[in-house]
Amino acid sequence: MTETLWPNTITFEEALADAASLTDSLLERLLVVPPDLEARVYEAMRYAVLAPGKRMRPFLVLTSARLFGVALRCAVQVAAAIEMVHAYSMVHDDLPAMDDSDLRRGRPTCHKEFDEATAVLAGDGLLTTAFEVLAHPDTHADPAVRCELVAALAAAAGAAGMVGGQMIDLIAEHRPLDIGAITRLQRMKTGALIAFSCESGAILAKAPTEARTALRGYAHDLGLAYQIADDLLDVEGSTAETGKPVGADAAAGKATFVSILGVERARSQAELLIGQAVAHLDLFGRRAELLREAARFVISRRT
Amino acid sequence: MTETLWPNTITFEEALADAASLTDSLLERLLVVPPDLEARVYEAMRYAVLAPGKRMRPFLVLTSARLFGVALRCAVQVAAAIEMVHAYSMVHDDLPAMDDSDLRRGRPTCHKEFDEATAVLAGDGLLTTAFEVLAHPDTHADPAVRCELVAALAAAAGAAGMVGGQMIDLIAEHRPLDIGAITRLQRMKTGALIAFSCESGAILAKAPTEARTALRGYAHDLGLAYQIADDLLDVEGSTAETGKPVGADAAAGKATFVSILGVERARSQAELLIGQAVAHLDLFGRRAELLREAARFVISRRT
Repeated sequence: MTETLWPNTITFEEALADAASLTDSLLERLLVVPPDLEARVYEAMRYAVLAPGKRMRPFLVLTSARLFGVALRCAVQVAAAIEMVHAYSMVHDDLPAMDDSDLRRGRPTCHKEFDEATAVLAGDGLLTTAFEVLAHPDTHADPAVRCELVAALAAAAGAAGMVGGQMIDLIAEHRPLDIGAITRLQRMKTGALIAFSCESGAILAKAPTEARTALRGYAHDLGLAYQIADDLLDVEGSTAETGKPVGADAAAGKATFVSILGVERARSQAELLIGQAVAHLDLFGRRAELLREAARFVISRRT
Repeated sequence: MTETLWPNTITFEEALADAASLTDSLLERLLVVPPDLEARVYEAMRYAVLAPGKRMRPFLVLTSARLFGVALRCAVQVAAAIEMVHAYSMVHDDLPAMDDSDLRRGRPTCHKEFDEATAVLAGDGLLTTAFEVLAHPDTHADPAVRCELVAALAAAAGAAGMVGGQMIDLIAEHRPLDIGAITRLQRMKTGALIAFSCESGAILAKAPTEARTALRGYAHDLGLAYQIADDLLDVEGSTAETGKPVGADAAAGKATFVSILGVERARSQAELLIGQAVAHLDLFGRRAELLREAARFVISRRT
């Protein structure tokens, strides 16, 4: 494997599949099951993070890193760390005390396949390992860059980001939120980690502020469009397509973009956001074509 | 507040109280409740980490840092991070799916005071913030030191350390462990974080390997003695003294040092370990007196 990532002729689908396979290979190596009693928590961690999935966040990491010619071996470390955090958040969100989901990515959720206690610990283990991976010299030769990655991931994933967004999401079950509050919730719950995925390439490259701001802008619009698309799938998709129960949001009485805006306006809003997202990429010219295709994919996807 | 920590005449009790007060002040500043909906998860994080407690781990951080003349403002950052990880582990361990405890440090456990979902998120938030604190420039001017702290804390807290130990502890409810397996369990579940507490002073000071090995040795013996003392309190203590239900281990059918060795042999084993722990400190001469007193405190404590 050379350090140069993807020829210019690669299609979005090929790049997405390659990002998934590169990230999964590294995850396999990072999470080796030890021959001891604690093996069970490693098995649950692997079950969660190696579940079939698009690996959209790893794709965003590798593609944003490619914009700056960052070494693949560094970018894939960050991709693996982010996928661990994403997987941990799903394991904890699916718990009976949270969203109480039995199905995820077409398979039993972690606490159904193992048990609730193991699922709590598997989530904890994945979150902890993500930071261990970022702090490792393999991620970047410069420890200042590694510290910046740790701090930025923690900010995105913590109480001011993903964890705070999930808190608001739980409160939303008992208290109607307006569109502004839902937008903020989603920026925290899913947007922050997507933004970190896109920005991480720039951090690895020590890229100038201008490039970082553009990638953050792209990611925020993309993340919101992604969430609206998710809400639309919850209403219009089928379990066979999405691999999870449909209508779950409505059943939980949660306000979503779709329940407030209606299907048609939600769809136009997503399209508007994708247009905005793509506009942020002008700075990078033709080099950002894969990120543009990713944006178009987000609102056309059926799963 | 000067950078010099504690005169040589300070007693162990004074130093312990001062470490607690310094750490709690910083925790207060690090965990400011925002005026937004996610406030609830911050309140739960504060409830858990600012609960009354001895703050033994922060004391070990500050005291080991003092051996090398490390700046107090750096050491207290590490102390706060470790206390967050310790608090998160208690919040998750107390959950109904895990140890199902209602009482902790004399107050309702986090999921009793808030709710289960909030407790899961509060634990996640504390763990995440701990890494954010370690990666922050306030913790050390040299990012290489900060990365080493992040990596070492993650190793101590993750599936090869605390999380793995808790996994084995859960398995132990259904499967009798021998004394070797229980020793390994406790080294992972509580020993690893105590070892990191003691070693962190040496990491902050970039101290030579010899000093780090000595502190790790001290901490491992201390941690095991601490656990045996805990098991003894579970048998001999009262809820009024310990602030948590007694007899919980026996009720859960768990093998402990006391259930296998009996009270008398467990007590001698703890005393032996304390002797060993203190012997590791010879290298530091008189400067390590507070750590020696801490070791003696561990087996004499009643709470």
